[in-house]
This record gives sequence, C-alpha cells and structure tokens, in this order.
Amino acid sequence: MLDDPLYYTIPIAGIIGLLFAGFLTWWILKKDTGTPEMKAISDAIREGAMAYLARQYKTIAIFSVILGVLIAVGINWLTGLAFLLGAFFSALSGYIGMYVSVNANIRTASAARRSMNEALSTSFRGGAVSGIAVVALSLLGVASIFYIYSGYLVDAAPGTYEAYSDALFLGVGYAFGASFAALFAQLGGGIYTKAADVGADLVGKVEAGIPEDDPRNPAVIADLVGDNVGDCAGRGADLFESTAAENIGAMILGLAIFAYTGNVGWFMFPLLVRAFGLLAGLVGIMTVKLRNEDEDPMKALNRGYYVTCIIAAILFYVAVKELLDGEMVFFYCGMIGIALSIVIVYITQYYTAGEYRPVKKIAAASETGAATNIIAGISIGLETTAASIVAIATALIGSYVLGTTIAPTESYEFIYGLYGTAAATMGMLTTCAFILAEDTFGPITDNAGGIVEMSHQPEEVRVRTDRLDAIGNTTKALTKGYAMGAAALAAYLLFGAFFEKVANLQGMEIVDFYQNFHVDLMQPAVFVAAMVGAMLVYLFSSLAISAVGKAAQNMISEVRRQFKERPGILAGTEKPDYATCVDISTKGALKAMILPGILPVVVPVALGLLYRFAFGTDMAIMGVGAFLMVATIAGVLMALFFNNGGGAWDNAKKFIEAKGLKGTPQHAASVVGDTVGDPFKDTAGPSLHVLVKLLSTITLVFATLFIA
Amino acid sequence: MLDDPLYYTIPIAGIIGLLFAGFLTWWILKKDTGTPEMKAISDAIREGAMAYLARQYKTIAIFSVILGVLIAVGINWLTGLAFLLGAFFSALSGYIGMYVSVNANIRTASAARRSMNEALSTSFRGGAVSGIAVVALSLLGVASIFYIYSGYLVDAAPGTYEAYSDALFLGVGYAFGASFAALFAQLGGGIYTKAADVGADLVGKVEAGIPEDDPRNPAVIADLVGDNVGDCAGRGADLFESTAAENIGAMILGLAIFAYTGNVGWFMFPLLVRAFGLLAGLVGIMTVKLRNEDEDPMKALNRGYYVTCIIAAILFYVAVKELLDGEMVFFYCGMIGIALSIVIVYITQYYTAGEYRPVKKIAAASETGAATNIIAGISIGLETTAASIVAIATALIGSYVLGTTIAPTESYEFIYGLYGTAAATMGMLTTCAFILAEDTFGPITDNAGGIVEMSHQPEEVRVRTDRLDAIGNTTKALTKGYAMGAAALAAYLLFGAFFEKVANLQGMEIVDFYQNFHVDLMQPAVFVAAMVGAMLVYLFSSLAISAVGKAAQNMISEVRRQFKERPGILAGTEKPDYATCVDISTKGALKAMILPGILPVVVPVALGLLYRFAFGTDMAIMGVGAFLMVATIAGVLMALFFNNGGGAWDNAKKFIEAKGLKGTPQHAASVVGDTVGDPFKDTAGPSLHVLVKLLSTITLVFATLFIA
Repeated sequence: MLDDPLYYTIPIAGIIGLLFAGFLTWWILKKDTGTPEMKAISDAIREGAMAYLARQYKTIAIFSVILGVLIAVGINWLTGLAFLLGAFFSALSGYIGMYVSVNANIRTASAARRSMNEALSTSFRGGAVSGIAVVALSLLGVASIFYIYSGYLVDAAPGTYEAYSDALFLGVGYAFGASFAALFAQLGGGIYTKAADVGADLVGKVEAGIPEDDPRNPAVIADLVGDNVGDCAGRGADLFESTAAENIGAMILGLAIFAYTGNVGWFMFPLLVRAFGLLAGLVGIMTVKLRNEDEDPMKALNRGYYVTCIIAAILFYVAVKELLDGEMVFFYCGMIGIALSIVIVYITQYYTAGEYRPVKKIAAASETGAATNIIAGISIGLETTAASIVAIATALIGSYVLGTTIAPTESYEFIYGLYGTAAATMGMLTTCAFILAEDTFGPITDNAGGIVEMSHQPEEVRVRTDRLDAIGNTTKALTKGYAMGAAALAAYLLFGAFFEKVANLQGMEIVDFYQNFHVDLMQPAVFVAAMVGAMLVYLFSSLAISAVGKAAQNMISEVRRQFKERPGILAGTEKPDYATCVDISTKGALKAMILPGILPVVVPVALGLLYRFAFGTDMAIMGVGAFLMVATIAGVLMALFFNNGGGAWDNAKKFIEAKGLKGTPQHAASVVGDTVGDPFKDTAGPSLHVLVKLLSTITLVFATLFIA
Repeated sequence: MLDDPLYYTIPIAGIIGLLFAGFLTWWILKKDTGTPEMKAISDAIREGAMAYLARQYKTIAIFSVILGVLIAVGINWLTGLAFLLGAFFSALSGYIGMYVSVNANIRTASAARRSMNEALSTSFRGGAVSGIAVVALSLLGVASIFYIYSGYLVDAAPGTYEAYSDALFLGVGYAFGASFAALFAQLGGGIYTKAADVGADLVGKVEAGIPEDDPRNPAVIADLVGDNVGDCAGRGADLFESTAAENIGAMILGLAIFAYTGNVGWFMFPLLVRAFGLLAGLVGIMTVKLRNEDEDPMKALNRGYYVTCIIAAILFYVAVKELLDGEMVFFYCGMIGIALSIVIVYITQYYTAGEYRPVKKIAAASETGAATNIIAGISIGLETTAASIVAIATALIGSYVLGTTIAPTESYEFIYGLYGTAAATMGMLTTCAFILAEDTFGPITDNAGGIVEMSHQPEEVRVRTDRLDAIGNTTKALTKGYAMGAAALAAYLLFGAFFEKVANLQGMEIVDFYQNFHVDLMQPAVFVAAMVGAMLVYLFSSLAISAVGKAAQNMISEVRRQFKERPGILAGTEKPDYATCVDISTKGALKAMILPGILPVVVPVALGLLYRFAFGTDMAIMGVGAFLMVATIAGVLMALFFNNGGGAWDNAKKFIEAKGLKGTPQHAASVVGDTVGDPFKDTAGPSLHVLVKLLSTITLVFATLFIA
C-alpha cells in the first residue's frame, strides 16, 4: 500500500533538499573572505560560536541520554531510540545552520563591497541552507522511522493498521527528542545572545556613546556570536521540532480515518505535503534576486515567498486529489493555513513596524522617559494578542467545521474536523523552508554588518549591509509571528494525537472514545490542572527572563570594569578582552538553561502520576489534557506578548534613531525599552514556541504512565 | 422556615455594623483639624476627590441605567431592579469610604502632632468605617433582596424551593450591578491615581529632585486626591461586589443541597457567616491600640487581625453546627479558607517586602540601570504566580474533596464538593471587614503624611506619619493578595452557580445536569472560547495600562511646562497650578475607563449568542463556561503578576532609599521600576479582581440568552 510511486517523492525530495543544501554550501564557501582584518573578526566569531555550541551540545547530550535511557527502560526501547534520534537530528539541524551562518557572514560582508545583489544572494542562500536542511532532515527522519518501525521493528504484521499505529506512537519519541533538545538550544542560545546584546548595548551604546558593533566594545564579539547561537542554532532546532512534531501528530490523526477508509493516503498526506513544500521552497529560494541594484531587497524576498506559496498551493491541491480520496474541503483547509500565515505576518508587521500606530505610540511615550516607554510597550504587547487570537481562532474553527462537513457519520465528525485543522497546519507549514531561510538570513546580515563596521569598510559598503540588516530584523520578527501562529494552529492536532494515544492505550475504538470522553473543566481537579498549566508558562518565562537579566548584569559589570581599568580601550589604543565576555555569556547560558529545560518535563509527568494515584485514570487523563490545553493557550498568549512587544520596542528605538534623535533623552528611554524587549522577543518568546509543543509530545510519550 | 431566631442575627449584625460605622465617623469628625495651613491642603484634597467622584458616578450612573433598563426589558424587571440597586449600593460604599477618608486624613495628621497611638487610632478607625460599611451594606442588600423577592415579588409561593430559587437567580442582578459599577470605579480611580502619581514622581522627584509630597510639585494635590478615589472608593466598590457576588453564589449552591435535605440552613449559611464575620471584625477593630508609644503599629494591627480570626473561627463553628446539620467537614473547609488567607499574606510578604530575596534581587539589578531593574521585576512578578497558585490549588482541591466525603450518594458528590469550596471561600472572607479596614487605612496615612509634609510640620510629626505610611503600604499590598486569593477561591463557587442556573433554565434536576453536562475543552469551539477568554484578560490589561501611560504622559508634560515657564514654583516663591493637574487626571480617567469597562460585558454576551446561533445551546453553554473559567485562570495569574511585581518594584525603590542611596543612578533606575509598577499594582491588577467576578455574574445574568 505504501508502494505507490507518488510516495517515492518523499525520500527523493528529502535527498534533493540535502544535495541542494550541500550545493549552496559549496557555492558560499568558494566565495572570497575579504580582507585579513575581516577574516580576523570572522574567525573570532566562528570560534566563539563553535566553542559554545560544543559545550551546549555536551550538556544537551547528557540530559538526552539520561532521559532517553529512562524512556527506553520505563516506556519502550523503540520510543527511547526515536527520542535519541530526534534529539540528535535536532542538534544536527542547529549545527548545520550555524556552520553555514558563521561562514556566510564574512562572505556576505565581502560581497557587499561589490554589489547589493551579491550580498543578498550570499546571505539569503546562507539562510536557505539552514531552512532546507531543517525541513529535509525532519522529513527524512520522520519518514525513515515510520517506514523502518512499521516495516521491521514493531510486533504487528507489516501493512496492518496495528503496524502503522505502533510505528507512529513509538515514533512520537522522535518529536519529543527533537523538542527536548530544541528547548535547551533555544533557551541556551536565547540567554547567550541576549545577555551579550544587553551588556554590549547598555554600556557601549548608552554609557560610552560608541556605535553598535564598535570594536572597542568588549562585548561585541559575544554579541555577534550570540546572533549565531541564538538565532541560527536555536531557531533551527525550534523549527525542526515543529515540523517533526506536527508531521507525526497529523499522521496519527490520519490513522483514524485510514481505519475507516482503508486508504493509507490519509496518513501519508502530511509527509507528501511536506515533501512538496520542500520542493516549492527550493524553487522560491532560487528566484530571490534583485532586478537591479536599487531594488528594495524586501521586494525580492516577497517575490520568492509568493512564488513558493503558489507552487505549494498547486502541489497541495495535487496531494489532496491523489491521497485524500479527492476530498477538496481539505484543500480549502490548507488554503486557510496559507491565508493565516499571511494574515499573521500582516498583524506582526502592523504591531512591530515603524510606520504604524503601535511603534509610533511607544516612540512618543519615550519623550517622557523610560518608565512611560516601558508602560506603552507592555500595553502594546498585551494588545497584540487580540488580533492574532481572533485570526487563529477563525482559522481553527473554520478548518474544523470544513472537515466535519464530509464526515461519513455523525460520530466521525470530530475526527474529520481534527483532520481539517491538521490540513490547515500542513498548509501553513508548507512554506516553512522558505520562511526559515528568511529567518536565518537575519543573523547572517547582522553579523556581516558587524564585520563591515569593525573592519572599517567604506561608507557605501556599510550602507548596503545596514539595509540588509534592517530587512533581516523585519524577517526575523515576521518568522516569529509565523512560528507562533503555526504552533497555535498545530496545538489542536497534537491534542488529537494525545487522545488517540489514550484511546489506543485503553483499547477503545477512537470513535467510541471521542463519544464518551471529555476534558471536563467543571471538575475542580481538572480546573486546577489547567491553572497549573498556565502557571507553568509564567514560571518558565520568569526563569528565562531572569537568566538573561542575571547574565546581562555580569556582562555590564565586566564591560564597565574594562572601560574603567583600561582607558586605552575607549581611546582605541588598547584591544579589549573579548574572551571574558564570551565566557560570561557561555557560563550564564549553560547554567541557567537547565532548570527551565527540565521543568516542562517534570511538571506534567508529576501531575499525571499524582492524579492517577489520587483520583484514578480518567481524572489523570482529563487533568493532563486540561493542563496541556490551557498551558498551550497561556503559552501562545505570552509568546505573542513577548515577541510583538519586544519587536515593537526594538523598532520604536530605530524609529527615533531614524529621526536623527540619537543621543537625546528620548533615545536613551527607547534604548531601555529595546533592552527590556530583548529577553522578551529572543529568549522567552521563542522558547515558549518550543515549550508548547514539547508539552504535547511529553504527554503523548508518557500517557502510558497515567493509565492504571 | 426562615423564622429561626438565629437568622435575626443577620439584619441585626448589619444594623449594628452601620450604627457602629456611624459612631466611628462621629468619633473621627469631632477630632480637631489642626492648623489653618493643614486645613487648606486637606480642603483642596477633599474638593478634588469629591468633584472627581461626582463626575465618575455620573458616568457610571448613565451606563448603569442604560444596562439596567436593557436587563429589565430583555431579561426580567426584577433582575434589572436588583442590578440598579447593586450598582447604587456599590457606589454608596465607595462614597462612604472616601468621605470618611478625606476627613480622617487631616485629623490623623493633626493627631500625629500629639501621639502615635492617637494617629493610629484615627487613621485605622477611618479605614474601619469603610470596611464595616462595605460588609454591612452588602449583607443587608443581599439579605433584603432575598427576603423581599422570595417573600413578595416572585410568582412562586413563599417558602417553596421555587421561591428561594427564583429570588436568588433574580437577585444575581444585584451582584452584577455591584461588579459593573465596581469595575468602572476601580478602573477610573486606578487610572486617576496612577496618572497623578507617575507624573508627580517622574518630574518632581527624579527630574527636579524635590521630595515626595512637596507643595512645589504641581501634581501633588492630584496625587493625594488619587489615593482617595483609587484606593478608597475603588477598593471599597471592589470588595463590596466581592462579598455580594460570593454571598449570592454560595446561597445558590446551598439551594441544591436544600432541595435534597429540606434544610434552609444550607442556603442561609453564607448570610449568617457573613454576619458573624462582621461582628468578629467589629471586636477586632476595637482592639487595635498601641501598648505603648514605641510599639510597632504593625503589631497592633496583627493583634487585631488574630483576634478577628479567632472569634470568626468560633462563630463559624457555631454556624456550621446550627445550620449545616452539624456536618463538621464544612468547618474544616472554612478553616482551609482562613489558612489560605494567612498563607497568601505570607507569600505576598515574601515577594514584596524588603528583607527577602525577590526585592533584594530587583534592588541589585538596579545597579546596572533601569533596563535590568525592569527585567528583574518582570521575572519576579511572573515567578510569584507559582507559590500562590499552588496554595490556591491545594485549598480548592482540599475543600472540594472534604465536601464530597459527606455526599449522600455518588451523584451528589459534585454538589457537596462545590459547597466545600464555598465554605472555604466564606471562611476566607469572614475577616473581610478587618482586612478592608487595614486597606483603607493605607491611603488615609498616605494623605496624612502628605498634609504633614506640605504644611511643614516638625520632624517628629513626620517621623510618625512616615512610619504609619510605610505600614499602610504593607497592608495595601497584603490586601491585594488577599482579595486575589479570595477571587480565585470563589471562582469555583461562581462557576457552580452558573451551571445551576443553566440546569434551572433547561428545567433539569441539578444532579442530572451535573451527571450529563461537561465543559468539554476537547471541542475546538470550546477551546477557542477558552482562548478568547484568556485573550480578553490581556486586552483589558492593555487598555488599563495604556490609559495610565497616556494620562501620565500628559501630566509629565504639564508639570514640566509649569516648572519651565514659571521658575518661581521651584524657588518656592510662586504657587503651582494644582487644578490643571487635577483636571488632566480626571479627564484621562473618565475617558479611558469606558472601553475596558464595557468590553467584559460585550464579549461574553456576543460569544454566547454567536455560539448559540452557530452551534446550538449546548455548545453555547460550554463555550461560555470555558470562556469564563479560562478567563478566570488568566485573570488570576495576570493579577498576581501585576500586583506582586508592582509591589516588589515599589519596595525595591524603598530598600535602596533606606540604604541612603537617594540621588544615585541606582535609585533613579529603581524609580523607573516603581513607576512601571504603579499601573500594574494599582490599576490593572485590582481591576482584574473585579473583572474576574464581573464575568461570572454577567454569564449568570445573561445565561438565558444563550439557551435556544
């Protein structure tokens, strides 16, 4: 049944993707690395980033192996194996993204000496390696586990429902491993980058009055390293786990329909759509080119994005037609997903771009000082949740209702509805490779700008990298909106997978289970579990933000100390001690990521076990379900607050700078806001994306413990 | 059945309370008003406060009458009448509290010239008038509506289940009216006071370097007025609606057990406990006296509180014995409530008092500037939710489980469990009069300090008022913790009332309803409703904070303008223009309170109607239920974050000042945090208490619209 030639597309697309990523890497590496001065700076960044990543991966490896063994022993060895594979591939994705990034930065800087177009191609293709590698590795990983587990490793006979079902439920370990590693990577990278950024900005820019990326700033190398370990490695791992978790979750939902229709297409659909999306992304990525040297690079990126969307939509149509018994409602669901991604991007843009009310409001509030700037920023951040939630809610209900319309019987409505939300999620994530390329493009241009600045390149080169850097900031903000929207939309699909797992464990038909089981918030124990879920999001955010604050304080003290004890640094006659700053960020990140990284694993498992023994199986499942769902709601809202609030503060500062007000009290106030926004948008917010999905995969993997 | 002599206690306690409040008012008013200079300042405060309150009440009256008429026409005229009465008494409570406060402030200032003990008695008894009046009016209001409605105005025959049930469900309008008026009062007062405070502090203290409450500060009168309209009138209305809503809600739960046992005690219990609590509070209030002039006044307050707790506990025991068929588990539930109030007070103290880690952490973070101060404060605020939620969760589950143990049959477990949570809430609120007295004591001492400062009293007088003011800040912070804990604990009771109402409307037996109905979060439409509920909390908070920011910016500009254009003000040769500042706060508050005041009424009603027509009655009820419950969770968490974060910032600043670091950059950084915390802890946080209960009463009143 799985030998339909169409399914060959899946491995072929994955392999094409990897080959293509290899080709792009080769293309980038053969470019020139500029002047020796540029190379010295780039080397320092690369070494710092690689050294940090090695240490971070060591910590992650230790925790992953411990947990993997516990899972293998306590749950099932195949789940433990999948977990370790997921953690490994997640880390590998982050590594590839960062490796290319730290090599593309200098080549982009060098290319900027020649032309805007070459600088854009170099940096965007550098980002594309990351995007393509993440999607290809995730696709190949999920597909391999599914084929190998269902065909060879499970007890059930190959080709049966049981074999597929076992393979997928065991394979969930892969998504869990990916999420687990990603949470550490995102937390560690996020803490690292923001501790450095905050320290560099507050002492360098505000107190000493030297420009961004000035070589006299002792924290400047740590800051540039941070862009790589936070934005490239962290985000790469984050989106890797997103695609893996959502793929497996959607396949599990497809199983329930396969059980009814006997058509394997229902669970193969997510894999094929992902493969098609990857191919669409490859084409889109290659079309990104300036029409002339003066064209706005953002236009070139948007062109590539729309090309990707159109090809992806057409291929989505083909996939629905071929695999889903031609049920076109799921094509419409997919289009709802693509539409949501565009709407979310517009909302994000409205709230974080300089030309609209929100950012202007924060800029105006800065006139009366830092306190009113913060008050305005927080109120904007809170406000952004409204439009986003309405959009997500509409997409969720719309795709669900569309799905229900073709349910064969009333009792199947829920299952088909869930599949509708899964199709919408698949639609939204179909452009993932391209979006990730845009995202990783950000830190590459940021680094390129730093290298150009620090190596004292001529004005025209700086203008080019500054323009690219500004666009990189925009695309980074948009990607975060996209990632959060996708996480929210995917939430339902993952809840569905959890409940199918529970039905499966209790030996119930899924249809019967859905008819008889409810996550009943009226039960006080369930309500309390929901409250604890929301609380976990607050506590987690607190730990993430606090870690940045603490490491940043150390960084500030260190930079102040260097400036004070060695006046030659500011005079430009003495080289600052970069290594100590790199070390402060490294230690701060590695230490502080552990507690928030472990908490989300411990709390739901402890809650489920406690409820099982205190109140029995049903209450344990309901409690964990409510915990998961309300934690998801709280996580989505908080992440929107953090991401958009942080983005708005950042651009309010840029807005004030663009008006030539650098050095005024208003500008100083806006720098405070920007600094507060740093851990919001680059540490807590993105880590919450991962948290939300990690909770889903944890409950899926550990569900068996909650059932008596 | 209601003619048991024990029930006479209810009106008698209410009347004794009012007489006693009258006596205290007379006692305060006959005290001397100090020097003519003091009187001039006090007059300005009183006039400003009264003028603002008159305008605010006009706005509230307009909206209340419109909504009252809509309810009378669209739902039921008795509900509309109860709504208007509730709104009126809520406003009256606020008015009484503020009237006494603006007269007690000067008398406290004058008494401080003579002795600490007299100053303490004057200010605390001033606060006690408010506390007693609120509880007595709420008790008399609820009892009167219940007696009159059930005896004379409902269609059913007096003395029947139907008569009691109709009276309570119609009487819910009273709680709704009280909440509706309270939300405006708390929002308007909170915006007024913080706009003035932020403006006065940032320009006066930070930029011009003049002390707090300096008469040269143009915003100083607005600031002192704000203490009254925000903390006295706002909080009075807030706690009035708390006690009213929780009383009616608990009586509704009692009805279900009355239906089974035929004992009216089950629904009269909340009224009697409230009456007993009032009497206990009177005794406790009168014991507050210094043993000698050097005793810490906080000790005298704590003595009074413990006396209140002990008497209340004994009376609670009597009430359980007499009314609840001697089921002692509900006495234990009540003790859980009292214990929770003490635990919450300790948690609040830990997070907001200078001697513990959290405040010290913020103070240390201020060394590296405003940005790290804000980052630390936000992380502490987020962290505070963890311990509080664990305490609330334990109390909720504990009292529920205790209640279930005496259920006569399994199907009654839910009802008895809910009654357990109601008994815990009643226990927690039994000391309400005393706590409110402590709360209103805060702004009175704050004002007294201002009057002493502005009228240039000798050092020893200032020392006394400063000490009282510091204690007032502590008691205000603790009260907020208490109010939020009570709101969270009460949430369940109010959900229960909502579902009984739904059962009632659908003509179902409550027991059957609970067996068959679930708020099933697995349904996407229900999940989406929950998401919207949480989002409403964010949007509401955004509006409240943004209003303060906007009005504060205007205030800052105005104070700066006056200092700049009239240099004589700072030199002390020219009197500033206080009136313009009062006007800025007034206009800012009155305009900005409307949207956040109306939103919480419109959103749940619109959602319920939309769901009813799109998905049918069941989904509408489930949707509104999930909306309500998850909004409650989000509201509780956000309020904890805002209240405790704001309190910690405030005390971090005081901690730095106490170390003699005024005027340093570290102190300036801590002032920014304190200012950001102002709208958190005095506008958004307390308004969220009201919001949470308003949502419960709204859904109760409008439930009928959601049922086809």
